[in-house]
Amino acid sequence: MRFQVQLLGTNAALPTARRFCTSQILNIQEHLFMIDCGEGTQIRMEQFKVKRAKLNHIFISHLHGDHFFGLWGYLTSLNLNGRKKKLSIYSPPGLKELILPPLTIEGTQLSYPIEFIEHDPSQHQLLLDHPKFQVYSIPLQHRIPASGYLFKEKKRERNIIGEQITWYQLEVDQIIKAKAGEDILLEDGRLIPNEELTIPGPPPRSYAFCSDTRYHPAICSIIKGVDLLYHESTFLHEDIAKAEKTMHSTAQEAAQIAHQAAVGKLLLGHFSARYEDISLFEKEARLSFPSSYAPADGDIFEIPYN
Amino acid sequence: MRFQVQLLGTNAALPTARRFCTSQILNIQEHLFMIDCGEGTQIRMEQFKVKRAKLNHIFISHLHGDHFFGLWGYLTSLNLNGRKKKLSIYSPPGLKELILPPLTIEGTQLSYPIEFIEHDPSQHQLLLDHPKFQVYSIPLQHRIPASGYLFKEKKRERNIIGEQITWYQLEVDQIIKAKAGEDILLEDGRLIPNEELTIPGPPPRSYAFCSDTRYHPAICSIIKGVDLLYHESTFLHEDIAKAEKTMHSTAQEAAQIAHQAAVGKLLLGHFSARYEDISLFEKEARLSFPSSYAPADGDIFEIPYN
Repeated sequence: MRFQVQLLGTNAALPTARRFCTSQILNIQEHLFMIDCGEGTQIRMEQFKVKRAKLNHIFISHLHGDHFFGLWGYLTSLNLNGRKKKLSIYSPPGLKELILPPLTIEGTQLSYPIEFIEHDPSQHQLLLDHPKFQVYSIPLQHRIPASGYLFKEKKRERNIIGEQITWYQLEVDQIIKAKAGEDILLEDGRLIPNEELTIPGPPPRSYAFCSDTRYHPAICSIIKGVDLLYHESTFLHEDIAKAEKTMHSTAQEAAQIAHQAAVGKLLLGHFSARYEDISLFEKEARLSFPSSYAPADGDIFEIPYN
Repeated sequence: MRFQVQLLGTNAALPTARRFCTSQILNIQEHLFMIDCGEGTQIRMEQFKVKRAKLNHIFISHLHGDHFFGLWGYLTSLNLNGRKKKLSIYSPPGLKELILPPLTIEGTQLSYPIEFIEHDPSQHQLLLDHPKFQVYSIPLQHRIPASGYLFKEKKRERNIIGEQITWYQLEVDQIIKAKAGEDILLEDGRLIPNEELTIPGPPPRSYAFCSDTRYHPAICSIIKGVDLLYHESTFLHEDIAKAEKTMHSTAQEAAQIAHQAAVGKLLLGHFSARYEDISLFEKEARLSFPSSYAPADGDIFEIPYN
C-alpha cells in the first residue's frame, strides 16, 4: 500500500539541462495525483516511466507559468492516446480560460471531459473526499493567489493478530470484518471482541505541498505533524533579500517551518537556476531541521506502510 | 561563415524520453532562427547549449500544439532574463491570441516587445529580406493551414585572388571593394578590372523546412536545388493509409520530393512515437534518395562555406 512522491521537476522559474520546472506525482495506494505541471512534465513522465492511466486528479498551485505550462502538452497527449475517463483539475481561479483555447483550435474536441474545480486559495478547505484519503487546500502567500495542498490518508485498517485468527479459524470474510473493527460472531455462538483479534492500524500517512510561498508560519497549524513536507526554497538564506522581494522562501526558512510544524521529513525544491551546487540547500536546512533533503529530478520519497 | 541547422526535437505529436517535439535552430552566418517550438524547446536549448542572444526571429509552421507549445516557456524565460530586444514571430494567422493571455496573467508586462507577423500560408511569398539572406513561405497541405519556410543566402562575396592582391599591393579598403565586385583604381591611375582580382564567390546556400504536410509535389518548384531539405516523414510507407488519413508523409514520399526537387541532402523527422527503430526511416528514404538522414535530437547538419 504505497504512499510516495516522485519529483519530476525541482527547479524554479528557469529550467536547466538537468532540472525541469515544478511537477510531482503523488501515489496514495495506487491513486496517482499530479501536483503542478511545469513545461516538459509529460517528457519527465516518459523518462521516469510514470503510468498515466491511474492519474485522474491534477492540483495546480498557482498561475505562474513554471507551475502549469506543461498542461497543454500533457492534456493533448491524453487526447491523442484516446483517454475517455474524466480528468479533474484543481486550481485557484482563472486556469480554465487559459488552458482551453489552445486545446480547442479549429474545433478540436477532446476525447475526454475535463472538470476544472477552482477554489479560493485564501481558504483552508476540504477539496476532495475519497473513501481512502482527503485533500485540503493550504493558503500560501505569494505574489499572486497561491494554494498548497495537504493529502491525508483516512484512518487505516486494524492489523490482525495472526495467531488469534488461526486459533479461532476465521474465514476470509470474517477477517475483513475484523480489520474494519467489528466484533466477530463464531458459528458456535461466541462473540469475539475485536480487541482480541486485532491491534490498531498504523497512523494515516500525510503529505503537504507548499509552493510557491514566502515564509508564512501560519501554515504550521495546518501541516502539523505531516510525515512528509515539500516546502519551496528558491534561495539560500544569504539571498534573503531576493526571497523577500519575490515572496519566496530560503532553505533556512523552509527548515524553520518543518521544525515548527514537527513534520517527519522535509523536501526542498523550486531551486533558483542561479545556484550550481544544490547540496548547499540541504546543508543549510539541516542546521535547523536534520531530516531535510534537496532532491534531483526523478527522486522518489516513500512513506513506508508501517 | 556558418550555415547549419540543429534539430532540438525530432518526434511527432507525442514526445518520448529521448525525442522531443519539433523545433530547430538555424544558424546563417551567426544569425539564429528558431523554426517551430514544441514543448521543452528551451530545455533542449539548455541541454545543447544554444545561445539565445542572437535569436531574434521565430518561425511557426502551424498551430498544432507539438509545433508551438514551447513558446510560452521560452518567451517567459526571455522575460525573466530581462531581454530588451524585439522578437519577431512569423506564423499562420491565430497565434497571437493563443500566446499572449498566459504570458500576461495578473497584468504581467514583458520586458521586450514581440512582433507577431501572420501570413497567408496558402501563398509562397517573401517574409523577411535581410542584407545577407531572405526567408520565404512554402505552402504546405495539412489538416489545418500550414506553412514551410525557405531560407536563402543572398549572393555571396567574390573570392579574392591572393597573388593579384599582393602584385598590385592593394589596401584593405580596396580589397573590400574588390570582394564586392568593383573595379579598382590604383594610385598611378590604372583601373584594374575586377575579374583580374577576384573569382565568383561560392553559390548562396539554402535550407527548406517542410512540416507538417502530406505528399505535395507542388512544393518542388519552390525548393528546387536547396542544399538541405527537412521534410517530415511521420510514417514508414507500410503505414501510408495512416499518412493519408492524417495528411502526413512517409519516408518514401519525403525522399521522392527530395529527388524531384534535386536537393543536396534530405533530413527526415517528425517521427511517430509508434516506431522504435528510427533507422528504418533512413533506410526507406535512401532507396529513392541516397543522401537521406534520420537525425536524433541534438544533431547538427552543416552546409560548408565553400
